[in-house]
Amino acid sequence: MNKMGLDVAVIGATGAVGEVFMRVAIERNFPVRNLRLLASSRSAGKQIKYGGELLTVRETNEQSLEGVDLVFCSASSEVSRIWGPWCRDREIIMIDDGSAFRMDDDVPLVIPEVNGDDLDTHNWIISIPNCTTTPLVMALDAMRQVSSIKRVIVATYQAVSGTGAAAVEELISQNISLSQGIDVSTPESYPVQIAQNVLPHVDDFDEDGFTKEELKMRNETRKILHHDSLPFAATCVRVPVFYGHSEVVHVEFSSEISLDDLGSALSSQDGLVYDDDQTHYVTPLEAADSDETFVSRLRLDPSVENGVVFWCVSDNLRKGAATNAIQIAESLLERGILSGS
Amino acid sequence: MNKMGLDVAVIGATGAVGEVFMRVAIERNFPVRNLRLLASSRSAGKQIKYGGELLTVRETNEQSLEGVDLVFCSASSEVSRIWGPWCRDREIIMIDDGSAFRMDDDVPLVIPEVNGDDLDTHNWIISIPNCTTTPLVMALDAMRQVSSIKRVIVATYQAVSGTGAAAVEELISQNISLSQGIDVSTPESYPVQIAQNVLPHVDDFDEDGFTKEELKMRNETRKILHHDSLPFAATCVRVPVFYGHSEVVHVEFSSEISLDDLGSALSSQDGLVYDDDQTHYVTPLEAADSDETFVSRLRLDPSVENGVVFWCVSDNLRKGAATNAIQIAESLLERGILSGS
Repeated sequence: MNKMGLDVAVIGATGAVGEVFMRVAIERNFPVRNLRLLASSRSAGKQIKYGGELLTVRETNEQSLEGVDLVFCSASSEVSRIWGPWCRDREIIMIDDGSAFRMDDDVPLVIPEVNGDDLDTHNWIISIPNCTTTPLVMALDAMRQVSSIKRVIVATYQAVSGTGAAAVEELISQNISLSQGIDVSTPESYPVQIAQNVLPHVDDFDEDGFTKEELKMRNETRKILHHDSLPFAATCVRVPVFYGHSEVVHVEFSSEISLDDLGSALSSQDGLVYDDDQTHYVTPLEAADSDETFVSRLRLDPSVENGVVFWCVSDNLRKGAATNAIQIAESLLERGILSGS
Repeated sequence: MNKMGLDVAVIGATGAVGEVFMRVAIERNFPVRNLRLLASSRSAGKQIKYGGELLTVRETNEQSLEGVDLVFCSASSEVSRIWGPWCRDREIIMIDDGSAFRMDDDVPLVIPEVNGDDLDTHNWIISIPNCTTTPLVMALDAMRQVSSIKRVIVATYQAVSGTGAAAVEELISQNISLSQGIDVSTPESYPVQIAQNVLPHVDDFDEDGFTKEELKMRNETRKILHHDSLPFAATCVRVPVFYGHSEVVHVEFSSEISLDDLGSALSSQDGLVYDDDQTHYVTPLEAADSDETFVSRLRLDPSVENGVVFWCVSDNLRKGAATNAIQIAESLLERGILSGS
């Protein structure tokens, strides 16, 4: 850890995102002076490696958070709702991975490559978008430089790590049972077996037959793009993949577009890799462990005027969560909003 | 086997669809007097159970086809192209599972519940649609009773059994390797590993960045619905599921529609099961081994006027192939087009 740097707390350090957060912080040389790994009392005492050091997980409480410069939170919404206001009251920046505050007017919802300027009006809590929203919006933001967007339709192929570490373990265990010809035990992470199956059901059902995940994608996309009425419909589907969310995206534009122009715009987007060979594509297995969002199979949608369809993949734990969070913190440092104590 | 009945040849008897064809024929009590199991010379001599009997696979040739009443073919397009014209010349009905003849003007492409009447103008070869087309068109056919269809967008989640028996074996073997922590051997059925992955790539790439599978879905849907210019765009994706193709479908109508009216139309469609509880859905694991097409999660698409989106699943080897073929043969018997010798 750096002698100069920030005193950082990770709430949810034992979770799927928490673990990647620590890995990405080291990779990007994020200036951590002191790292506090926090979790529920159940995980307190557990030891986790950070760089060369072995750190002990502590329970999240006022004492363990005392004097911290930056809090990264990837836990349940209930946990976020306790410690978010606590941080705000003490003028400590909390970057929250959950959905608790994302749609609050005074909470910037940020992808640094897209709307980093929204950080300037922060009120201490900053949310990162859902792991399906981030790669999608990176592509949409590039494309809207060519023509304004009239409508977006998405179907997702989401990895189980988006549900958390327990779902990853459960898929591993189901795979082993099935490979040995043993019956799968009663599913816990999902209503039905996820191994060798796909489920059109991510998060709870909400209004008008859509799930919360589908509505999150819509609402968050609108907020990040500052386009409150953008026509948008998603169907979110869980697939038996460990890491990497994929999406089939249809976009309709308000004026004539060309694949060349859209391709140039996509190639100019920081953090996005576009392949203009229409027979190439990136799979989630290939995107896992990368920080980039990969767009491929871009083609004109012949079923509508001024439409395209494409394939978009990114590692849901990295750009979808941990990497985006670290990038926000880096941007806060650059903007002078955050500084070491 | 029935003393009264048909002399039936199955070309491709050792393939994934051939095996299900025999199972469905028994379940539906299809009047088979004599069953000839045919395949390439490589499989000749293999023994396969049919009901209580053990039948020996023979090589497909003029001798083994001599005197047959009905041929069911599920092999490569090359094989179809040899024996299709051969059957036609001899006025023997061939029901072909492949894509070789589907778009030929004088070849009916039939889902009995939708366009059985097209059988009346047959010219001996009859094609069944692609396994992704059949469930989709069953739903679209029901819905167009409510309002005419202006546009269809589909994203698929396709099982590996659609590729064939070898792909099923390869996914099993990849699952076992991964469960044991062993590296997966070089993929053969697909360009990259399918276990724990999804591939936006079904069949070869063709024109304008679309794959042949995506164009098949479009062209076949138009042909079966007799709607040659229907605006249509599909993205076909392979998922690590053994049996059951799933689809996210967006449909736009030419006039106002209600979920109630569409639901009634779907419920009236023979062979289709519709669940109007918007929080229920059917997964491919649950649809496997069923002859029905399952439609669920029907909801208004808020991103467009007069649009809906839904989830559609069916067993690709059954209604997607074998069951549809047997139903065509049953319809040919009813229509007096086919009769035992």
